Amino acid sequence: MKLGAIEAGGTKFVCAIGDEEGSIFEKIVIPTEAPEITMPKVYEFFKGKGIERMGVGSFGPIDLNEKAGTYGQIQKTPKIDWIGFPLADSLSEKLGVPVTVDTDVNVAALSESRWGNATDVDTCLYITVGTGIGAGAVVNGQTLKGLSHPEMGHIGVRRHEEDSFSGACPYHQDCLEGMASGPAIEARWGKAGVELSEDPRVWEIEAHYLAQALVNYIYIISPERIIMGGGVMQQTHLFDLIRKKVVEMLNGYVSSPRLTEENINEYIVPPGLTNEAGVKGALGLAMK
Amino acid sequence: MKLGAIEAGGTKFVCAIGDEEGSIFEKIVIPTEAPEITMPKVYEFFKGKGIERMGVGSFGPIDLNEKAGTYGQIQKTPKIDWIGFPLADSLSEKLGVPVTVDTDVNVAALSESRWGNATDVDTCLYITVGTGIGAGAVVNGQTLKGLSHPEMGHIGVRRHEEDSFSGACPYHQDCLEGMASGPAIEARWGKAGVELSEDPRVWEIEAHYLAQALVNYIYIISPERIIMGGGVMQQTHLFDLIRKKVVEMLNGYVSSPRLTEENINEYIVPPGLTNEAGVKGALGLAMK
Repeated sequence: MKLGAIEAGGTKFVCAIGDEEGSIFEKIVIPTEAPEITMPKVYEFFKGKGIERMGVGSFGPIDLNEKAGTYGQIQKTPKIDWIGFPLADSLSEKLGVPVTVDTDVNVAALSESRWGNATDVDTCLYITVGTGIGAGAVVNGQTLKGLSHPEMGHIGVRRHEEDSFSGACPYHQDCLEGMASGPAIEARWGKAGVELSEDPRVWEIEAHYLAQALVNYIYIISPERIIMGGGVMQQTHLFDLIRKKVVEMLNGYVSSPRLTEENINEYIVPPGLTNEAGVKGALGLAMK
Repeated sequence: MKLGAIEAGGTKFVCAIGDEEGSIFEKIVIPTEAPEITMPKVYEFFKGKGIERMGVGSFGPIDLNEKAGTYGQIQKTPKIDWIGFPLADSLSEKLGVPVTVDTDVNVAALSESRWGNATDVDTCLYITVGTGIGAGAVVNGQTLKGLSHPEMGHIGVRRHEEDSFSGACPYHQDCLEGMASGPAIEARWGKAGVELSEDPRVWEIEAHYLAQALVNYIYIISPERIIMGGGVMQQTHLFDLIRKKVVEMLNGYVSSPRLTEENINEYIVPPGLTNEAGVKGALGLAMK
C-alpha cells in the first residue's frame, strides 16, 4: 500500500511517498510560507500518486481531539497565517484519503519506536531540547494524547540553588522550557550554548532542570526508554550529567534494573534516527 | 462468563465473583495478615466457583512488567511479610485461571472509566489523596504502565511561599506526597486535616500543591477528566480551591473548553463510585 507522509515544520514541509515497511520512494521539500502558497505545492506533489492513507506530523499547537469538529486544525501559534488552518481536512478533501495528524514530537517518538532506538520496548518517550522543549510518547504502540496534545515542556521545575535567571517562557516564566531551552541558556549566560561547551556551570544547571523533568516523566508515564534529541542535546556531554542526576533524584524509589547507575546509559539515549525521522514517523501514523 | 476480582488492600482483601457487565454475585472480606494466613482463605473462596479469568487491584509496589519473570510480585513494602510474594502466580496456579494485576489506583481509574464519572471519555486520571498520594490513568481503555507502575504521588512540587514544613516523604522529603498527604497535613499543623476544616491557611497550601500536580499531569498525559478521591478530598471545599488554582496556573496555555473557569467543575470531579469501586475495577481488569 502506498502511503503519504508529511513532516510539517515551522520552516519546511517534507513530503514523501512510502510504504508500510517505512521505505520512502519519493520526497520533496517545500518551504513553509503562508498556507495559500505552501499548500497548493503540497497537493500537487501527492496528486495522482495513488496513496491510500496519509500521516502528518505537524508543528503546533494543533487540535488532536478526534471528537472535535476542529481535528487537525492549527491553533494559536506565532505563525499567524496558519492560525485556524484546517490542515487535516484540507489534505483529506484535496487528495481524497483519510489523514491522521499528530504533533511533531509524538511522531518522533513513534518513529523511534518503529525504526529507531526504542524498537524493543512498548512505551517510550522522546524529548527534544532546542528552541523550545517538547516531548511525545508512545504507549502500547499508540501516541499519547487525550484532551489535547501533551505539553510536557511546560511542567514546573525547581530552581537550581545557584541560578537566579528569571526564565524565558512567555506563559509560565520559569517552567522547564523557560529555564532549559536553547534561548533560555542564551538569555542566562549572554551566549549561545554552542559557545559555552567548556563551562561546567552551564551544563550543571542545564542537567539539573532536564533531569528533574525526566524524573517527573518517569513517575507519571513510566516509559521503558527515554530518547533525547534537539539542538541542545548536541552537547553530548550532557547525557552523562543528566543520567547521573536522574539516578540520584530517583534515590532508588522506582525498582527497576533499567534505572540503576550501571544500566541508565541504555535507558536515556540519543535518537537512533537522524535523517527522515520525521517523515518516517508520519508514515508510521498513516499505517494505523 | 464468570470472573474473579480482588481488591487487595493493606488492611483487607475484598474478593468477589462477578461478570462482564460489572455485576457482582458474591463477595467476601478477608483481613490482610501474612500471606500464609490470608491467601489460603482467598483460594478457598474462589475454588470451584467456575471463574474463567481473574483481575487483581493490589497494594504495592507490585511488579507490572509482563516481560519480567516477576510479574505480579509484591516488591519492597512496609508490609514485610509480603515482600517478594508472587501474588499473580500463586493465584493463577491455585485457581488455574489467567490473572491480571494492576495497582489499586490504576484499577480505580479503570473502574471510573467503565462505570463511574469518566464513562464518556477515553483518557482519565484518578488521584487519591490520603495516607499516601497515588494516581492511576486509563489511556484508550488501558491502564497506563510501562517500565513499572507510575508513582505519580512522588513528583516534585514547588514550595508555597508561606510553607516552611520540611516534608514527610522518607524517599524525597518534600515531593507531592511529602507535602500534601494526610500525614503531611498533620505533621505540618499538629492536628489531623479533619480537625482543621475551618482554617483557610491549611487548604490554601494544600490546594497549592495538589493543583501543581494536576497541572503537571495535564501537561504530561492530557487526560480528558481528573477524578480526585481519598480521605483528604472528603474536605469537599478543596475541590473549588484546586479548580481555581489549576485554571490560574495553566494561564490559558492549553486551549480546551474543558479547562476554562466555566467548565473546570466538570473536569476535576469526585469519584462516581463509592462502594465496590475497587472490586468492580478488578472485574474490569479481568475482562481484557
